Amino acid sequence: MSTSINLAVIPGDGIGQEVVAQGLKVLTAVLPQDVKLETRQYDLGAQRWHRTGETLPDAELEALKHHDAILLGAIGDPSVPSGVLERGLLLKLRFAFDHFINLRPSKLFPNTATPLAGRPDIDFVVVREGTEGPYTGNGGSLRTGTPAEVATEVSVNTAYGVERVVRDAYERADSRPRKKLTLVHKNNVLVYAGHMWKNIFDKVGQEYPEVTTDYLHVDAATIFFVTQPERFDVIVTDNLFGDILTDLAAAVTGGIGLAASGNINPTGAFPSMFEPVHGSAPDIAGTGKADPTATILSVALLLRHLGYEAEAVRIEDAVSADLAERDGTFRSTDAIGDALAARVAG
Amino acid sequence: MSTSINLAVIPGDGIGQEVVAQGLKVLTAVLPQDVKLETRQYDLGAQRWHRTGETLPDAELEALKHHDAILLGAIGDPSVPSGVLERGLLLKLRFAFDHFINLRPSKLFPNTATPLAGRPDIDFVVVREGTEGPYTGNGGSLRTGTPAEVATEVSVNTAYGVERVVRDAYERADSRPRKKLTLVHKNNVLVYAGHMWKNIFDKVGQEYPEVTTDYLHVDAATIFFVTQPERFDVIVTDNLFGDILTDLAAAVTGGIGLAASGNINPTGAFPSMFEPVHGSAPDIAGTGKADPTATILSVALLLRHLGYEAEAVRIEDAVSADLAERDGTFRSTDAIGDALAARVAG
Ligand SMILES: CC(C)[C@H](C(=O)O)[C@@H](O)C(=O)O
Ligand SMILES: CC(C)[C@H](C(=O)O)[C@@H](O)C(=O)O
Repeated sequence: MSTSINLAVIPGDGIGQEVVAQGLKVLTAVLPQDVKLETRQYDLGAQRWHRTGETLPDAELEALKHHDAILLGAIGDPSVPSGVLERGLLLKLRFAFDHFINLRPSKLFPNTATPLAGRPDIDFVVVREGTEGPYTGNGGSLRTGTPAEVATEVSVNTAYGVERVVRDAYERADSRPRKKLTLVHKNNVLVYAGHMWKNIFDKVGQEYPEVTTDYLHVDAATIFFVTQPERFDVIVTDNLFGDILTDLAAAVTGGIGLAASGNINPTGAFPSMFEPVHGSAPDIAGTGKADPTATILSVALLLRHLGYEAEAVRIEDAVSADLAERDGTFRSTDAIGDALAARVAG
Repeated sequence: MSTSINLAVIPGDGIGQEVVAQGLKVLTAVLPQDVKLETRQYDLGAQRWHRTGETLPDAELEALKHHDAILLGAIGDPSVPSGVLERGLLLKLRFAFDHFINLRPSKLFPNTATPLAGRPDIDFVVVREGTEGPYTGNGGSLRTGTPAEVATEVSVNTAYGVERVVRDAYERADSRPRKKLTLVHKNNVLVYAGHMWKNIFDKVGQEYPEVTTDYLHVDAATIFFVTQPERFDVIVTDNLFGDILTDLAAAVTGGIGLAASGNINPTGAFPSMFEPVHGSAPDIAGTGKADPTATILSVALLLRHLGYEAEAVRIEDAVSADLAERDGTFRSTDAIGDALAARVAG
């Protein structure tokens, strides 16, 4: 734990700016006085791309390396062709900084609207692989745009990449009271990647005798997410399955406005990056309707990663208490940020 | 519409036998007296594999070709390594018979238990591509079992394959009152396959000016499945996304015990195959607890495919009426089959 934090901030597009402002507000409020917070904003995203055609120039990628962590708002705008900013900026960062742990906790906070009847007791964390699988950009298209087109997408999986994320997931499971770890894949169809995942999962498991394990196909996992989400403790899964499952998890735990995430490189070789799971929501940008809670909870993950455990817990407790007292009347982005900043400072 | 049906029956494993028996019971009861029903049972699945090592020998594949349709129970058993029967039997049939339409209707019947609060009005159909995508078995593993292993899975997509399923989905949307079609993919990450799907979707759409369209990323689609499922009418999607989404759809519409499916080759070049979405559930096999309704609804899809529309509707209405009157007391597999057979005969 350092006594200064040198933070890179990428507000990005749409509501990104607004939610990041609240995240920084709460961060400033929660930090002990003797911790020096330095921030540098990076102008990356749709506007930059329109202006210069750049998504993430080398100089900025290099500069980003020298921060302790990155806080990102949201990337994407309908005016930019689908994939340009996702591949050229967001995924480029995850890959360049080897963010192999994509950490996504799911908790049903008090008093939040879940679409599930009976309000099950949900508290699990998805450890999504972040640097492999179908996300590698390995694919192509032949005879593009003709009736004879063939397009491929290659899911690339390495024992190196799978073992490190599986091991991290066991560590997390081992440190939680229930000590339960579920592997999600589709090894009855994707037999090459699926069997490698399962074999490594079983092998590493021998080192964690106290962790109870099970395996679910991804299709079956979605069923349990809505019928029996309380069965999950820690889930480890592939990049694409993790993408799908964590949006579903966010939906059943009160919505994407509350879902935080960390793109983590636990080795410390590169800065880790924290961002809400939600997108840039251009339809509500500028209206004050965006819920900054997901970003503020991402700041808690950021603090935990940098060693500020007490401050992380303070933010999470503040969110819990704040949600418990919300009475359904509208509060603006700014008002929610103020309320949480006041709570953590108190 | 022929006056005879020459049906192949593959009961398969676990509860497969039990549910198929009820499907045949209802089929016999609903058919007009002058329609001659011939069935031939095929002994395929886990037991056969244990006995002979065979999953689907050429002779049987050839014989299956000469039926009007196939009714399948369920395939799979924990005693068989994951993937052997799925790839060697179930997927082999779907691919050999070019079942490019994997049709999966989702409807919230009266009086059934949905995990969703507020019982939304759900009535949509997923048109899942059945012969391409990540299901082609195109992949491999290098240095298998070593710390240097690399495993790949290749999603193969052709304009030929995508256009025919997209066109089928437009036809279905055009014939429904709401005339709405949603494409689900992940074209911000899987840019090669995703853009091809989207381009073909847009191009074919010009021929269906009355159909309203939209596009959702697969992760966002799972959110709407639980927060706003009533927004969907017809969904067209890739093989793997369709697999995941239809299990989730089954879960929100009262469970996998009610989810029917058809693996359809609309050209008639090969027999189409109808099966419940659920698996072989070995844990409840032989207990009489299996719900045969999904299989019976699959029989309705089979009849519709063969031109027996009135009989298909009779089965669907019988299921609706039966569910509306269920009072929560336990009914065995056999009792449910009897009740539905009595209703459709009446
Ligand atoms: C925007 C997109 C590239 C991204 C992903 O697919 O990982 C998002 O959905 C997420 O989950 O962070
Ligand atoms: C058993 C498995 C191969 C199959 C699939 O993935 O298609 C099943 O999940 C289904 O949905 O019919």
